[in-house]
Amino acid sequence: MAMENFKQFLFALATAVLVGFVSIFFVLRWVFYFKEGLAWDGGLAEFNWHPVLTVTGFIFLQGIAIVVYRLPWTWKCSKLMMKFIHAGLNILAFVFTVVSLVAVFDFHNSQNIPNMYSLHSWVGLAAVILYTLQLVLGVCIYLVPLTPTYLRAAFMPLHIYSGLFVFATAIATALMGITEKLIFGLKDSKYKDSPPEATFVNVLGVLIVVYGAIIIWIVTRPSWKRPSEQVLVSLSTSPRESDGTKVGFGLSQQTVCVDPEGGREARKRSGKLEDSGQVN
Amino acid sequence: MAMENFKQFLFALATAVLVGFVSIFFVLRWVFYFKEGLAWDGGLAEFNWHPVLTVTGFIFLQGIAIVVYRLPWTWKCSKLMMKFIHAGLNILAFVFTVVSLVAVFDFHNSQNIPNMYSLHSWVGLAAVILYTLQLVLGVCIYLVPLTPTYLRAAFMPLHIYSGLFVFATAIATALMGITEKLIFGLKDSKYKDSPPEATFVNVLGVLIVVYGAIIIWIVTRPSWKRPSEQVLVSLSTSPRESDGTKVGFGLSQQTVCVDPEGGREARKRSGKLEDSGQVN
Repeated sequence: MAMENFKQFLFALATAVLVGFVSIFFVLRWVFYFKEGLAWDGGLAEFNWHPVLTVTGFIFLQGIAIVVYRLPWTWKCSKLMMKFIHAGLNILAFVFTVVSLVAVFDFHNSQNIPNMYSLHSWVGLAAVILYTLQLVLGVCIYLVPLTPTYLRAAFMPLHIYSGLFVFATAIATALMGITEKLIFGLKDSKYKDSPPEATFVNVLGVLIVVYGAIIIWIVTRPSWKRPSEQVLVSLSTSPRESDGTKVGFGLSQQTVCVDPEGGREARKRSGKLEDSGQVN
Repeated sequence: MAMENFKQFLFALATAVLVGFVSIFFVLRWVFYFKEGLAWDGGLAEFNWHPVLTVTGFIFLQGIAIVVYRLPWTWKCSKLMMKFIHAGLNILAFVFTVVSLVAVFDFHNSQNIPNMYSLHSWVGLAAVILYTLQLVLGVCIYLVPLTPTYLRAAFMPLHIYSGLFVFATAIATALMGITEKLIFGLKDSKYKDSPPEATFVNVLGVLIVVYGAIIIWIVTRPSWKRPSEQVLVSLSTSPRESDGTKVGFGLSQQTVCVDPEGGREARKRSGKLEDSGQVN
């Protein structure tokens, strides 16, 4: 199925993935080159799991989970399979996030540092609680087959909004975390003297914002939405003619997409018009 | 003109305005009760203009500017007048923001503190530059009468997205600013010991996030959009019958809304269906 502005989509997606990978590279280099590396010893190397796992899980993986329905090469896959991938990626991101919280609480307790005193911790914990709620409700409403369709429909705007809210809040929390760590954690210099570590980690913060901005751009373009219904008819009716079998309808492994909601769909996919309704 | 879910809209709007006002009260109490008050003396009291003006202008006023088209009691006003209000509020917010920047640069220079070293300053300045661009482009494209309609339409998705991006980034920047100030600025205690000032200002941070969340919720509900075209016909054809004049059509100061784009409009306003297209 063709996607409107496919090249622009590919460019946006490729940039997001690239920026995401560079962010992960930056957080790893921060931890291994500038800091104490990774370990599970109650010390600073245990703390370091916190930024590594939040950037990788709560931000990068969650972002990928958010855009996974938008990939046009998955539109041939069944919706149920895509839901499992969406849920699976989110659950993986959630596990990363929980381990990252365990690391920081364990580090604080070992070092007799109080927990939950900073705005970073308040907003971050609120985001994780909302994420938990989002996962539980999402699975109950969209994966349990018993849930009635009207409930799925009624909850969808909230599911979309709260998903993007948690994602954006995770990014804002990371920015606060970077700020805290660059004030508390620099060894032989101060943040205000802009040592190389500070500049490097500031760039990580900017990369995370850019990643989030592209993901939210992709997911809010109406013309890039997955078609709402799609029946894949893989007609294997054209074996090689040399087989001597009858060739049916001249179709060869062709994908036919039947859209039972044609009107709504056509309207939804005319994203430009949709967005520009108020320009007079 | 009737609005779908009007009570829910009113509740969301009232909550946003209330939370916004409480945020402004919190930042003023922070500055006057916990800190040095306000002055323009190159000292800490000058710095204090920075949080006061960013919370009031860059966050509260910008948020109001964003939702101003959604107020159903303004739907009788001409679109041009609403554009001027939208632009005017944004320009006011911009002036507040610029003065808040002058305050902090002036304070830094007076105290020999370097400028632009922190992630807060990087992301914040980027947001202000984008906001400037947004204002200039917004005025040129939507208020200069010469701009062709196709350009207005083509730019609208970007105008909406970048407006909300700047707004969200302003909030994330405020959270970093609070974090910095509570680490650097507490006098007789440390952030980790949770003195009353720290807890109070953390609550301010949470309030700002809640304000932003409600504003973005309001502005992204399709059913709460201002109708795209509206011709107001105030038919003053029904003066008091005691006047003895002829009563025309039985209409008394009635507002008739003519929607030249009926189909598109009806579709746009069925927001629930729109959002719930992918629930199967």
